[in-house]
Amino acid sequence: MSAATKFMQIEGSFVMHRGGVLESPTIAYETWGKLNDKRDNAILLFTGLSPSAHAASSPEDQAPGWWEDMVGPGLPLDTEHYFVICVNSLGSCFGSTGPASTNPVTGATYRLSFPVHTLEDVADGGYQLVKHLGIDKLHSIVGCSMGGMSALALCVRHPGISAGLVSVSSATRSTPFGIAVRSLQREMIRQDSKWAGGNYDPEDPPISGQRLARKLGMITYRSAAEWDQRFHRERASSEGHIGDLFGFDFEVESYLESRARNFTGHFDPNCYLYLSRASDLFDLAEHGGSLDAGFSKIQLERAMVVGVSTDILFPPHQQKELADGLSKVVPDVRYVPLDCIQGHDSFLVNMDSFRPVICSFYETCS
Amino acid sequence: MSAATKFMQIEGSFVMHRGGVLESPTIAYETWGKLNDKRDNAILLFTGLSPSAHAASSPEDQAPGWWEDMVGPGLPLDTEHYFVICVNSLGSCFGSTGPASTNPVTGATYRLSFPVHTLEDVADGGYQLVKHLGIDKLHSIVGCSMGGMSALALCVRHPGISAGLVSVSSATRSTPFGIAVRSLQREMIRQDSKWAGGNYDPEDPPISGQRLARKLGMITYRSAAEWDQRFHRERASSEGHIGDLFGFDFEVESYLESRARNFTGHFDPNCYLYLSRASDLFDLAEHGGSLDAGFSKIQLERAMVVGVSTDILFPPHQQKELADGLSKVVPDVRYVPLDCIQGHDSFLVNMDSFRPVICSFYETCS
Repeated sequence: MSAATKFMQIEGSFVMHRGGVLESPTIAYETWGKLNDKRDNAILLFTGLSPSAHAASSPEDQAPGWWEDMVGPGLPLDTEHYFVICVNSLGSCFGSTGPASTNPVTGATYRLSFPVHTLEDVADGGYQLVKHLGIDKLHSIVGCSMGGMSALALCVRHPGISAGLVSVSSATRSTPFGIAVRSLQREMIRQDSKWAGGNYDPEDPPISGQRLARKLGMITYRSAAEWDQRFHRERASSEGHIGDLFGFDFEVESYLESRARNFTGHFDPNCYLYLSRASDLFDLAEHGGSLDAGFSKIQLERAMVVGVSTDILFPPHQQKELADGLSKVVPDVRYVPLDCIQGHDSFLVNMDSFRPVICSFYETCS
Repeated sequence: MSAATKFMQIEGSFVMHRGGVLESPTIAYETWGKLNDKRDNAILLFTGLSPSAHAASSPEDQAPGWWEDMVGPGLPLDTEHYFVICVNSLGSCFGSTGPASTNPVTGATYRLSFPVHTLEDVADGGYQLVKHLGIDKLHSIVGCSMGGMSALALCVRHPGISAGLVSVSSATRSTPFGIAVRSLQREMIRQDSKWAGGNYDPEDPPISGQRLARKLGMITYRSAAEWDQRFHRERASSEGHIGDLFGFDFEVESYLESRARNFTGHFDPNCYLYLSRASDLFDLAEHGGSLDAGFSKIQLERAMVVGVSTDILFPPHQQKELADGLSKVVPDVRYVPLDCIQGHDSFLVNMDSFRPVICSFYETCS
């Protein structure tokens, strides 16, 4: 946990969107900059599935955050002008209550007794945090990947909570391709015998299943075109070989292995399962019976939708659909399709493309 | 094994492309039609990774084959005019010698003692079969998917063995994306404890790992666009639920499960590992040091390259690369990009698109 993490406890029972209750759950978050006197300069940032609330470094925690080049003084989310709040999603494992937390009613870890989890619950956790911080209306919400769907959920469940919305590489709902990929990732973890029906030893978690799931994640987070350029048919260095007949022949295999090893051990498997499934379940069209009905609940002054041509998880046609839908109900909508080669992860790694777009929304370009 | 399967035994030692020897290996195959007196009407068909030599039904085996609508009287590979030979790849498990076969030298199953396997070996198995059948020069070679690379290997190792070549949804070599996918599939099988380092009980094989690998296969064999149309966000029927908290919510998950269950149990896991790796290893550029050098070894009179816009395993730019390369050395090359929505598997399921293309090459269109 980052030393910069702050916590708020929701008083009493938190009723989940699809049933079930969490007693006095905690929401973890970090902030940068200062809330101004008018309390109208707050930006709420929802993350993708796996990051913590540590979006950027700060005096309390100087380690680089997951959006280090986007949040800070003089950066697109300029903390000299804006009060930036990044929330750790409810259901995650970086301070907010989730399946790896202790249920205060039973004294035991929730594990699979955690209720069915949805991005509507993630959104409500963010809403409670905003109220806790004494903010009536946000300047804007920024949601990346899964966080973009959490942001949409917040907009439809609490209309008027924000003046602006920035959706980054997200969509109104997951595609069957995305569902298939995530369903298979979950199955990889569940089939690792160490998962033990959710009752794994936290000191000996289902690392093998998590590593497989992370590799499949990386295959869908990046793009085939990037890998053509980056790896082509480069052979694995000898260090990458694991020695057996089916070791690694190619550098792309070594790359996946090192990326997977960096990830596993840092994210609780049950939390991953719950948030992954929540990503599949979200559908803006469930808020009213159709996408149009869902959009009609949204009250925003302006919005921006940014997406990437090579994103196979939230492909360009979904970005367009989101922008078109918002255009029917929001006076000022800008759609920015970017031609980055790094796929879905471009917003994390191609800062040169994303910074100008984000700062144009915030008028922070220097 | 199909009752129509024929067998030929290669006499003596078969030296493998990357070292190692198979003693007196067997090549399984099926044939349709008759070899004419001039012995110039033979078509050799190389399969993808998983099919057997049973490409089409026959009096000996009336079960539909994997290319039933393509091979037969009055069909594009018209068995009233052509003598069609489909070869079970060396290394497979449908009659040809592979890791699941008995090593005649030791009397034990090869398993992981099978030498490193390559598509050059698959090609040489096909070459031996052609010679065995008394054919000096084939009318043409047809290779689908992995079989297209086997066909290229045959063309470069035995120039002049065929007058024609039809490459269907294949390429000069695998992309890093394809390698990443197949590497992960292999890892899924190897991490199933029942794989037991390759020494699994044939009656109790690593089904779980195979099922995961097959699901990832299906995700890459079809296209996201097809699934948008076919499944959208349709919910799984209740039969599809497996009852636990992380069961199947969506029809696309049930579809993957049923497809995976149909496959596992029919294909030997070690054979799958060897052929999958052979697909990664093949590179036409290794035949001479560059793609151009590889192409320059090919002696053909005409060729056709057919590919599909939505294929993510052998994407359109690879089809184009193959056609362009062939054009430098083959007098008559036709490149046919098809706009099918079913992805890599289109050649198996979209017969209406593929039949006219294949029959145009064989002048068998009625």
